[in-house]
Amino acid sequence: MKKTNLAEVLASFSETWSPRIVGELNNQHVKLAKLAGEFVWHRHDKEDELFLVLHGRLAIHLRDRVVELNAGEFFIVPRGVEHKPVAEDEVHVLLFEPSTTINTGNVRNDLTVDTPDRL
Amino acid sequence: MKKTNLAEVLASFSETWSPRIVGELNNQHVKLAKLAGEFVWHRHDKEDELFLVLHGRLAIHLRDRVVELNAGEFFIVPRGVEHKPVAEDEVHVLLFEPSTTINTGNVRNDLTVDTPDRL
Repeated sequence: MKKTNLAEVLASFSETWSPRIVGELNNQHVKLAKLAGEFVWHRHDKEDELFLVLHGRLAIHLRDRVVELNAGEFFIVPRGVEHKPVAEDEVHVLLFEPSTTINTGNVRNDLTVDTPDRL
Repeated sequence: MKKTNLAEVLASFSETWSPRIVGELNNQHVKLAKLAGEFVWHRHDKEDELFLVLHGRLAIHLRDRVVELNAGEFFIVPRGVEHKPVAEDEVHVLLFEPSTTINTGNVRNDLTVDTPDRL
């Protein structure tokens, strides 16, 4: 039971595509992540996923369009919907999603993180 | 399925202690609220509640201490824990909590909002 300062956590790591768990509530996780470049197309069959941009600009590619997010904007990717996050420059995001969520969803590859660090 | 700009939503209403639902995912709500002054002591018996300060300064009083939050800081009040938010000046917060959450928890009074507006 202590508060979390988002900037302090973001200053504590530099790896991209490696979400940190910074909060747990109601079987959901709050995560912070740094993203840069292009992720893989994937979907989460049972989890809706919220992306809130804290710093930078994130393009969430969907099969039929691209959602461009700037700092202070969020988007919820509903379960089952294929998406691919793309960050032209490094972007910092807050994620809110069920604790069962795997970052690459239905895909397994080098970017898959089964047990994110807890901070 | 559209993005939400936090500043735009916050500019769209002025009432304090009247949370707006701005997102729904995994049976959770994302809410935005403006708080000013002192709320009531209450608890949520079945819901953990996250307060993320976007603008201003919020004091979350617990029975044994006070958690002071500035912009960019969040705190999770676990279920069952009595708390009283106090904002000396107006503060803007983002809330994550189950969709079943009533703002005044176990207390009913003039501040109780049973069905928050959806934006």
